[in-house]
Amino acid sequence: MVRVAVVGGTGYTGAELIRLALAHPEVDLKAVTSRSDEGVALGEYFPSLSGHSDLRFVAPHDPEVEQCDVVFFATPHGVAMNDVPRFLSAGCKVIDLSADYRIKDVALWERWYGVRHASPEFIEGAVYGLPEYNREKLRDASLVACPGCYPTAVQLGFLPLLISGVVDPGSLIASAVSGVSGAGRKAKMANLFAEVDENFFAYGVGGHRHLPEIEEGLSSVSGATARVTFVPHLAPMSRGIHATLFARLDGVGAVSCNKTIHAQYRSAYDDEPFIDVLDMDVSPETRSVRGLNRCQMSVTIPDGGHTVVVTVVEDNLVKGAAGQAIQCMNLMLGKAETCGLGGIALFP
Amino acid sequence: MVRVAVVGGTGYTGAELIRLALAHPEVDLKAVTSRSDEGVALGEYFPSLSGHSDLRFVAPHDPEVEQCDVVFFATPHGVAMNDVPRFLSAGCKVIDLSADYRIKDVALWERWYGVRHASPEFIEGAVYGLPEYNREKLRDASLVACPGCYPTAVQLGFLPLLISGVVDPGSLIASAVSGVSGAGRKAKMANLFAEVDENFFAYGVGGHRHLPEIEEGLSSVSGATARVTFVPHLAPMSRGIHATLFARLDGVGAVSCNKTIHAQYRSAYDDEPFIDVLDMDVSPETRSVRGLNRCQMSVTIPDGGHTVVVTVVEDNLVKGAAGQAIQCMNLMLGKAETCGLGGIALFP
Amino acid sequence: MVRVAVVGGTGYTGAELIRLALAHPEVDLKAVTSRSDEGVALGEYFPSLSGHSDLRFVAPHDPEVEQCDVVFFATPHGVAMNDVPRFLSAGCKVIDLSADYRIKDVALWERWYGVRHASPEFIEGAVYGLPEYNREKLRDASLVACPGCYPTAVQLGFLPLLISGVVDPGSLIASAVSGVSGAGRKAKMANLFAEVDENFFAYGVGGHRHLPEIEEGLSSVSGATARVTFVPHLAPMSRGIHATLFARLDGVGAVSCNKTIHAQYRSAYDDEPFIDVLDMDVSPETRSVRGLNRCQMSVTIPDGGHTVVVTVVEDNLVKGAAGQAIQCMNLMLGKAETCGLGGIALFP
Amino acid sequence: MVRVAVVGGTGYTGAELIRLALAHPEVDLKAVTSRSDEGVALGEYFPSLSGHSDLRFVAPHDPEVEQCDVVFFATPHGVAMNDVPRFLSAGCKVIDLSADYRIKDVALWERWYGVRHASPEFIEGAVYGLPEYNREKLRDASLVACPGCYPTAVQLGFLPLLISGVVDPGSLIASAVSGVSGAGRKAKMANLFAEVDENFFAYGVGGHRHLPEIEEGLSSVSGATARVTFVPHLAPMSRGIHATLFARLDGVGAVSCNKTIHAQYRSAYDDEPFIDVLDMDVSPETRSVRGLNRCQMSVTIPDGGHTVVVTVVEDNLVKGAAGQAIQCMNLMLGKAETCGLGGIALFP
Repeated sequence: MVRVAVVGGTGYTGAELIRLALAHPEVDLKAVTSRSDEGVALGEYFPSLSGHSDLRFVAPHDPEVEQCDVVFFATPHGVAMNDVPRFLSAGCKVIDLSADYRIKDVALWERWYGVRHASPEFIEGAVYGLPEYNREKLRDASLVACPGCYPTAVQLGFLPLLISGVVDPGSLIASAVSGVSGAGRKAKMANLFAEVDENFFAYGVGGHRHLPEIEEGLSSVSGATARVTFVPHLAPMSRGIHATLFARLDGVGAVSCNKTIHAQYRSAYDDEPFIDVLDMDVSPETRSVRGLNRCQMSVTIPDGGHTVVVTVVEDNLVKGAAGQAIQCMNLMLGKAETCGLGGIALFP
Repeated sequence: MVRVAVVGGTGYTGAELIRLALAHPEVDLKAVTSRSDEGVALGEYFPSLSGHSDLRFVAPHDPEVEQCDVVFFATPHGVAMNDVPRFLSAGCKVIDLSADYRIKDVALWERWYGVRHASPEFIEGAVYGLPEYNREKLRDASLVACPGCYPTAVQLGFLPLLISGVVDPGSLIASAVSGVSGAGRKAKMANLFAEVDENFFAYGVGGHRHLPEIEEGLSSVSGATARVTFVPHLAPMSRGIHATLFARLDGVGAVSCNKTIHAQYRSAYDDEPFIDVLDMDVSPETRSVRGLNRCQMSVTIPDGGHTVVVTVVEDNLVKGAAGQAIQCMNLMLGKAETCGLGGIALFP
Repeated sequence: MVRVAVVGGTGYTGAELIRLALAHPEVDLKAVTSRSDEGVALGEYFPSLSGHSDLRFVAPHDPEVEQCDVVFFATPHGVAMNDVPRFLSAGCKVIDLSADYRIKDVALWERWYGVRHASPEFIEGAVYGLPEYNREKLRDASLVACPGCYPTAVQLGFLPLLISGVVDPGSLIASAVSGVSGAGRKAKMANLFAEVDENFFAYGVGGHRHLPEIEEGLSSVSGATARVTFVPHLAPMSRGIHATLFARLDGVGAVSCNKTIHAQYRSAYDDEPFIDVLDMDVSPETRSVRGLNRCQMSVTIPDGGHTVVVTVVEDNLVKGAAGQAIQCMNLMLGKAETCGLGGIALFP
Repeated sequence: MVRVAVVGGTGYTGAELIRLALAHPEVDLKAVTSRSDEGVALGEYFPSLSGHSDLRFVAPHDPEVEQCDVVFFATPHGVAMNDVPRFLSAGCKVIDLSADYRIKDVALWERWYGVRHASPEFIEGAVYGLPEYNREKLRDASLVACPGCYPTAVQLGFLPLLISGVVDPGSLIASAVSGVSGAGRKAKMANLFAEVDENFFAYGVGGHRHLPEIEEGLSSVSGATARVTFVPHLAPMSRGIHATLFARLDGVGAVSCNKTIHAQYRSAYDDEPFIDVLDMDVSPETRSVRGLNRCQMSVTIPDGGHTVVVTVVEDNLVKGAAGQAIQCMNLMLGKAETCGLGGIALFP
């Protein structure tokens, strides 16, 4: 059994990590930390966990954490960078779900996150946790930087196009939508039920922190210099990311396009256990992947035109966060990649 | 007082027309028709109308309808085209909220709607009911074809860019989102609460009926040949359209862009009573226009790049349907354009 | 025109008061106060008000407030009791939407609200703002204590039964449900969208602050000693109160009950402009009164049994708060009671 | 492995049965029938099942069904009664989730369901599938009538009180709330998203089909003659039942009540694997049992008074339907009662 700790377990991502860890057949969840709720039973804090665990939140410096094989960080940005070095020294493998080690260009990171990086020397060695494009490196990683929820969907959707070189990488467009849990579990007026329900809006149109991560990721995998116009939106639902991606085709024949592109996506992801390329003319829906570590997508060239449209769904808390982190852990430890990540979405 | 009839009053658009007509100081609502619910009191069918009107639904051929000054059609596509000629002969002004007279190219219309047009000779004379770009013609119209909900938002958002000629009209992208009332009040499994709640998806990616209307409208107003990639989505909310529009800038300098574009939009819509160009860095939200005949929008050039992003909101049932129809009626009858269309959005 | 000020205008009740005041034909809204957002434009703080008012929030002690004819308090409990005496001295009429002057028994109030009352000498003179049962006193009031949202629905529903003496007043049961706006606009984790959506629960089962107000109100109007078991619940919606009331019939014949009771309710509320007793076998729905100063109810004796069931709906922010306050103001100033309180509910 | 068939698999209960059957370690799902969708792949009809099963819907008379060990009926009321005898003759065990065999008094059943019972001779032998009170009989049952969703919650909540004899069984009150999936997956206007969202109402106040089932169940287990005033409500959520139960205490001392009653409930359900009596002062929430075969409840005597309040939650599709049916199957087959029924609720 793998001994696991979660640092920062009171948010939605933390709750999801705990749920997945408790259900994982090879994980023994040993410690969950919380600065604010030390001593509180997990099952009291999260009624959904009542009866499933006897753990209580411990302080971030509790010795139990260091003795774990794997330490997950589900903390706000800027926390992990202070503590990760200590855990690595102690021999733990670390999987960081925050943004601290996601971007290789430190100056770029510091500009978007507005703080000085506390351990920039670890960025280089951190492996970006997108298993579909980084599987081999993940097997040997001791520090993994899990992608953000938007970047996961956008990269998984765009990469087959960029890799096959059929689109102009310089004018990509991503119009993406997130459920409210993506904003975290902080007490914020903007996320109150009565503010969000029956409402829909874009935010960060002028620039969003996930943009540099997306562009760096797309470019590094595909070799092309990707430029993305990225517009995130908030929808009145708790979970789910839906990304609608647009790219301009570059010299592909018109007639056979839809079939060709579809076949390309099928072949790109055929062996992937957590990616479904849906049948032609079927659009993915966020509800189909609710609670699952799964990404579903469709690809279409409307009207035989010059723009290709990819629609992608994932659960922001699972394939966009905690589930992907577990998938990385499975790889790091030599387990079956799918271990503990099965299940059927709850419908309705 | 203007005598008004609504043909097809049992849907969401019909209900909204009735609400606005009853509140309009110069309208006397004389008849509302329904094939299926003839004889039923409006206030029984729509509990929200209880106590506000003594009318009962009448049959579509009730003589009362023909005696009205203005007849609104809130019927499914393919109904108005059979009955409009009769009402025009009787001297009524007709405002059709369905698609029957929206598209000048009959063959194109017939291809998308899958039926033969029953009165194509009336299409030419029908005035497209987008007052912001067709005000003068509306004053003399006897038959008005009201725009669809998506086309209203998309055209109002794109037109200042196309008219000023700063973008490439051949590669426009519109990613739009609608509340569920846009799908009508038919008993359809796909629109059940338990199917729609906590779900988000695109539909009609390969082609949607509103696309030819959008392209024809953009082209005819701007003189350019507009080509649009249009992707509609469904969000778990009852009302609201949000359109996120992307266009490629064509030879505009980078530095002053945001300010210039913003000023352009402000000047384009300054005198418009129902359009708000929001302050820079403010994004429109669907809730701000809920129940109102109002369209709010923002324009941004992210990162000083080459793509301009316009975000637009409207209430699909008001500025996207019934409100805009009343706005057209006011113009046709020489009333103040804003008459009966005031009010403050309900919040929350 | 009546000069009006709102003290504490940043909450949901404040926003609703502002909306109603701006739409009221005889009100001139002069000042809205906010400690935290002094100087901010109302239309910036509440996007729904953008374009409808040029006011900015002023400090609570701004001299403009004292010069108003009517001052509304939409503050949390415990604020008004400090400032009301000053406004009364200045000659203002005061309408307090908080609980500070609702309960005549000061000791009881202090026990439930956990603070010492700052101006107990004003409680006796405060008129309880339930117009249907206190209309005459309201005409002469200078200080009005508006009922809570639950107490409004529960009292309006129970009082015809208690007054006619057909039920046992000692074992009343009220199972009531509120939308989330009832919890206010504070940044509280428990009211985040992702906490509340797809969830339903009771709270305060052991005792809720509205209970003593309900019991005092029922007893003082009916003369009977009312004892109520009151269980409030939270439903995943923004607005609306639904109360399901149960009382044991005391010696009424079984056969004719439903008709008799229904007729009794009809006659109790026939002349009331804001109360609808629905037809037999029709249940009230919260959506029918959304945004309206209106209370709808039904009364039934299931199975000809010994328990009478009354179901009542209102909009917690309107008939349960701001609308009722305006209704009281109309009475205090000798205006038509319905002035500024018309309108049709938005559907859907 | 147990061979299992589901008759009527296109509704929400059917979908949930399929989900649970596929996840059950000892079940081999062999056939799912549908009259309307014969031949359609399960994974096409329910996107959530895509990739989890290769089955296609078969006709109700497909021979595969009869060869199963266990046949579940998830059909509308009035269907099972025609086909059950055939399956029993074929040696299948039958678990009926519809109402056909729930009520022992045939005349009463026929009055409420408005049809003649087609196989009344099987009612006597049918075992009512409430395992907590019928466990031993279930072990030997060949035909099980699963309780309705409301009856499950109401009976589990009331029975400890009735059995201990501390309340008056003649004046019980149940105010219960259901999510919309309880109304089934039929295309019905009343259940459209735009009708249900932001709405709350009671229905069937004058009488609901679940009432006779509740009263018969309570009476037969407790020996008392239970009379219930039952008012169901619809809340804008997909899943969940919340029941608020009221009973009059009969001669119990006031002081120690809360502790005594709580202890009584704890001891009543201590050994039950699927019932949680929560700590005092904690109220159950529907989200905590979403997707789970679990019932959580609290018991309180507000104010030390004479009325006891029990609040109960369950997932209407799981403990209120498909999960309970699997629990019954486990008992009938001598498996561990909890087999295949674990899991942690998805939060948020």
